[in-house]
Amino acid sequence: MNVVELRATLDVEAIGREMYTLVAELYPICRSITGNGLRQSLDILKRYIPLQTYETPTGTPVFDWTIPKEWNIRDAYIKNLRGERIVDFRASNLHVVNYSAPVKKWVSLGELKEHLFTLPDHPDWIPYRTSYYKETWGFCLSHNQFLSLTEDEYEVCIDSSLEDGSLTYGEYYLPGQQDDEILFSCHSCHPSLCNDNLSGISLAVFLARVLGSVRRRYSYRFLFIPGTIGSITWLCRNESQLSKIKHGLVLANVGDVGRSTYKKSRRGDAEIDRAVLHVLQHSEMDYEVMEFSPYGYDERQFCSPGFNLPVGNFMRTPHGCFPEYHTSADNLDFVVPFSLADSFVKCLSILSVLENNLTYLNQNPKGEPQLGKRGLYRTIGGPEGKQDELAMLWVLNLSDGNHSLLDIATRSGIYFDKIKKAADILYKHTLLEEQSVPTASWWKGTQ
Amino acid sequence: MNVVELRATLDVEAIGREMYTLVAELYPICRSITGNGLRQSLDILKRYIPLQTYETPTGTPVFDWTIPKEWNIRDAYIKNLRGERIVDFRASNLHVVNYSAPVKKWVSLGELKEHLFTLPDHPDWIPYRTSYYKETWGFCLSHNQFLSLTEDEYEVCIDSSLEDGSLTYGEYYLPGQQDDEILFSCHSCHPSLCNDNLSGISLAVFLARVLGSVRRRYSYRFLFIPGTIGSITWLCRNESQLSKIKHGLVLANVGDVGRSTYKKSRRGDAEIDRAVLHVLQHSEMDYEVMEFSPYGYDERQFCSPGFNLPVGNFMRTPHGCFPEYHTSADNLDFVVPFSLADSFVKCLSILSVLENNLTYLNQNPKGEPQLGKRGLYRTIGGPEGKQDELAMLWVLNLSDGNHSLLDIATRSGIYFDKIKKAADILYKHTLLEEQSVPTASWWKGTQ
Amino acid sequence: MNVVELRATLDVEAIGREMYTLVAELYPICRSITGNGLRQSLDILKRYIPLQTYETPTGTPVFDWTIPKEWNIRDAYIKNLRGERIVDFRASNLHVVNYSAPVKKWVSLGELKEHLFTLPDHPDWIPYRTSYYKETWGFCLSHNQFLSLTEDEYEVCIDSSLEDGSLTYGEYYLPGQQDDEILFSCHSCHPSLCNDNLSGISLAVFLARVLGSVRRRYSYRFLFIPGTIGSITWLCRNESQLSKIKHGLVLANVGDVGRSTYKKSRRGDAEIDRAVLHVLQHSEMDYEVMEFSPYGYDERQFCSPGFNLPVGNFMRTPHGCFPEYHTSADNLDFVVPFSLADSFVKCLSILSVLENNLTYLNQNPKGEPQLGKRGLYRTIGGPEGKQDELAMLWVLNLSDGNHSLLDIATRSGIYFDKIKKAADILYKHTLLEEQSVPTASWWKGTQ
Repeated sequence: MNVVELRATLDVEAIGREMYTLVAELYPICRSITGNGLRQSLDILKRYIPLQTYETPTGTPVFDWTIPKEWNIRDAYIKNLRGERIVDFRASNLHVVNYSAPVKKWVSLGELKEHLFTLPDHPDWIPYRTSYYKETWGFCLSHNQFLSLTEDEYEVCIDSSLEDGSLTYGEYYLPGQQDDEILFSCHSCHPSLCNDNLSGISLAVFLARVLGSVRRRYSYRFLFIPGTIGSITWLCRNESQLSKIKHGLVLANVGDVGRSTYKKSRRGDAEIDRAVLHVLQHSEMDYEVMEFSPYGYDERQFCSPGFNLPVGNFMRTPHGCFPEYHTSADNLDFVVPFSLADSFVKCLSILSVLENNLTYLNQNPKGEPQLGKRGLYRTIGGPEGKQDELAMLWVLNLSDGNHSLLDIATRSGIYFDKIKKAADILYKHTLLEEQSVPTASWWKGTQ
Repeated sequence: MNVVELRATLDVEAIGREMYTLVAELYPICRSITGNGLRQSLDILKRYIPLQTYETPTGTPVFDWTIPKEWNIRDAYIKNLRGERIVDFRASNLHVVNYSAPVKKWVSLGELKEHLFTLPDHPDWIPYRTSYYKETWGFCLSHNQFLSLTEDEYEVCIDSSLEDGSLTYGEYYLPGQQDDEILFSCHSCHPSLCNDNLSGISLAVFLARVLGSVRRRYSYRFLFIPGTIGSITWLCRNESQLSKIKHGLVLANVGDVGRSTYKKSRRGDAEIDRAVLHVLQHSEMDYEVMEFSPYGYDERQFCSPGFNLPVGNFMRTPHGCFPEYHTSADNLDFVVPFSLADSFVKCLSILSVLENNLTYLNQNPKGEPQLGKRGLYRTIGGPEGKQDELAMLWVLNLSDGNHSLLDIATRSGIYFDKIKKAADILYKHTLLEEQSVPTASWWKGTQ
Repeated sequence: MNVVELRATLDVEAIGREMYTLVAELYPICRSITGNGLRQSLDILKRYIPLQTYETPTGTPVFDWTIPKEWNIRDAYIKNLRGERIVDFRASNLHVVNYSAPVKKWVSLGELKEHLFTLPDHPDWIPYRTSYYKETWGFCLSHNQFLSLTEDEYEVCIDSSLEDGSLTYGEYYLPGQQDDEILFSCHSCHPSLCNDNLSGISLAVFLARVLGSVRRRYSYRFLFIPGTIGSITWLCRNESQLSKIKHGLVLANVGDVGRSTYKKSRRGDAEIDRAVLHVLQHSEMDYEVMEFSPYGYDERQFCSPGFNLPVGNFMRTPHGCFPEYHTSADNLDFVVPFSLADSFVKCLSILSVLENNLTYLNQNPKGEPQLGKRGLYRTIGGPEGKQDELAMLWVLNLSDGNHSLLDIATRSGIYFDKIKKAADILYKHTLLEEQSVPTASWWKGTQ
């Protein structure tokens, strides 16, 4: 079974529900760029796919960066004079500025306010804030809570630790017929935020799971990594292998009800860019395409000028374009099974383009071959069957060695699957030969 | 006299009427991809231009195809029980599925219906159907006729023959100053259908006739060939000569009242494509331009990847875009002398671009040459004569060896004829030299 | 101080007033392509900038042209029978067809009319006409004046001389760090016409004056030349030096109240073209961009195919697009200090792009460098300071040796100054290195 056949066998609605269930299971955990929350999350993923985890010790240089201390947190609160927890980490891990240094003391209201973050425009929401690279502490709370702080003194407690340890990431590799790889990467460092990016994690897990059961031309690599420092660490540890990455997608914000959005790779016209565009154009759903910019998720690192990998960003509503972004409102109500499933299906469609985007050579390039004598043509002239014929004619006409099937689909305006089907029929009738492609050494050995 | 001068001498209205007369004379003949109907038609054309006919025997391989049997038909009918011809080939040759095998027998209504073709949406029209490559028989009739078939049995008779013979095509070659050729091709295999393609045949004939009397830079080749198999046969027999074809047009559907339409060659930006666009853009008439697709007329064969010739398709309303297409309604009322004449004039304008599209070298490229001292400039500053001056300035500015006159016309937005006139004046004043172009060997000998 | 810093120090309103004052001082002088009016005008400019004047003798061949005779005029009039000056050169030097040969005689009204030019559509305005290359004489007058000519005979007198002499032009060279030059050219041959082109002269003078006081990467050359023959003369005399010209602008019509207009160089995508477009796009004012055409001002010569210099035309309302063009209505009311100042400021902005359009190499191209540890990044995540960060990220991402700062500004949509500022900060933190650029030999010696 290949990825095209796979799509037809899937119960997409059920997959959407399963993806949502995984999001819900991961939701309560307090993740960060290092620490046990991240490890615990990766352990949950291991129930779905046999991913490997890698640890890189604190202090290890990774390009211009250094692996930071490991952060772990057990509890945190602000108590009033009556000893009541008025801000409680156990109610939401967003209450603590992520990566906060430990603190336990009484502070005046004036001092406390310098450590508090709120969203006056959304007075019921808790913001999400981090302080990875400046050692400090802080609390996030709803603006309404903030306004109710009237006492002179409060007890603050963050029972966290910032100590030598390691940075953890997860990686799952699926070998294919070729050494050439397709990369999926999702940042896995955010605490209780669903769209950003439990949705991306869940999408990567379910893609990995189904791809494990199909015939693959490409090898696949899935990264579950802390944002920025995680991708930089992975790139540093795997620098010699990067040339194998032929296409890649960063997955983020794939579960909200918004339309699908694709942000192009830095190259702008890489095969992944053209494949995603083709799928979205033929999706019969609204979509948006954005040019590359060096701001966003880990495509910033994959597309840095020293690598310039063909990695785009597949999402629904982009970060910063929905008010719930980086707030407690990015919760389990904000992502929906339908959107998760739709993102999943579109990724499979993109993969089915990439997997099948071969270049063929027309074996009868002088004039059209006689399709009729091969039973490939209407025998009584008329309007029937013209669409399939047209796809065959396009494939024959452009299979001159300079056009891949995606090129042909794009120029003809015919959806890739139909072009691929036409190529299959023509190939079966020896009207096409495949242009030679490199085969992985391990695969050759097993043939 | 060259082609530019020619246009001024022509009585275009009279030519439109003559073109129509030829269409009318050819209309009753039952043509097919082989057989005497085609030969008879070519004989009529020989009264206008001394074309050669070529015969290729049945069974000859031509690339992936084989020359089929020769089809001839004398009579055909469906008779009712009273012996009345209720469908009669003598009334319209469209009544017989073109290339039908002979048949003469009594059939039940049920069996008969499997061999009948109608157009329910146009109940008075007879469809045009063919069965070239599957041996069968059939009748086409109006849907109203079809509905009146109520008897149990009918006598069907098709007095045709499918026998070894040959495939016929006509070819007319007009040598020019250069061996480089401009190709015109029109399919000549359709029976009583006027726009598709007696209009194209008539246009080719009249172009050939007037071009015979002018000074030609290019050599010209006109093909009157059966669709598909004819162009494949011609390509196969002339493969070694194809590199001489520098520009080409397939002519079809050039007589209806619709606007002019140009379908680009597979290359998309060949000189023929740019020449036709330029003429249409400056025609002050509505027009349409279509990208190449591997469906349509014999441009499919000329633009197959093994040849990729710069051949576009010049027409009015494209095939399949008028309801009369491939029906008895594509008759002598459907084509009009005005449209035939307009297509003719536009072709001459296109040829006048191609014939004159030379590249010159400005002999005074440093600064402008002093036009005034040569009498080429207003001597008292003012708004007069600016247009001609502007054309001269454009020619001088862009005649750096990288821009042909058509390039200059396109970039300046000035119509080609005006640019050409400016170049002629500058050339006369030795301000331009022509870039050297190859000259035909035969021409050199006769100089 | 560099040109960016310079802009901040300028009192633009005051400069606009000074520019206008210079226009007003030059206005009464009767200039032509040769003669003392031009010399007198250049002498006035020498009070502002130490320009050099060059004389080329009558009869000298310059490419296809020859230096014409020197024209000087002392007086001119048409007198009626009562001896009254009804047309008087002393009232407006436009009354005489520029370059008119001397004449003094009685002529009949009929003969006189053959030498008169008027503007019937603007009956109060005097047209501006020239006859450089055909020796004749003529007067220009308002159409109302013309209509009042009722006597039979008039005395005409043009007290001019056309004698061997020389053609004069002014040139001012400002050496910079590099031998590479930026050229400004303005035609200086028109008599009492303000927008065309005393405005351009004044703009060039004030640019030259302020640029003299700043640190310059480029060398600058300012030409004050008679139109056409002047630029051809200069090009001929300086042919061996032309390769130093890296960017250039012809300045004309820069003082009217219309929007800024840029006519691209013949190349169309030269750095000057992209720099001007960028400045205009970010000016928050209406503007227009025109493609190159070989008509207009001296860009015709600079962009002739033998030179093809990257020289565009910076203006407000283009020649011929305002009714006052080449009439007495192009007077001191038609140019305004605000527009002169705005043209001046835009030119400085263009120069500040060109001066700073370096190409850098990201020294940490693998992943992003850690901006946080250098204090270049928000330390608590949040929306603050994102714009400056984004500029830094763009510079880092695209500084791969293939993108200049202008390329980065264009692709990012961020104004050049912000991109430049980001590059400066990154450079200071050794995150960027400059790609090596050639340095002028004289500059190296003086370092």
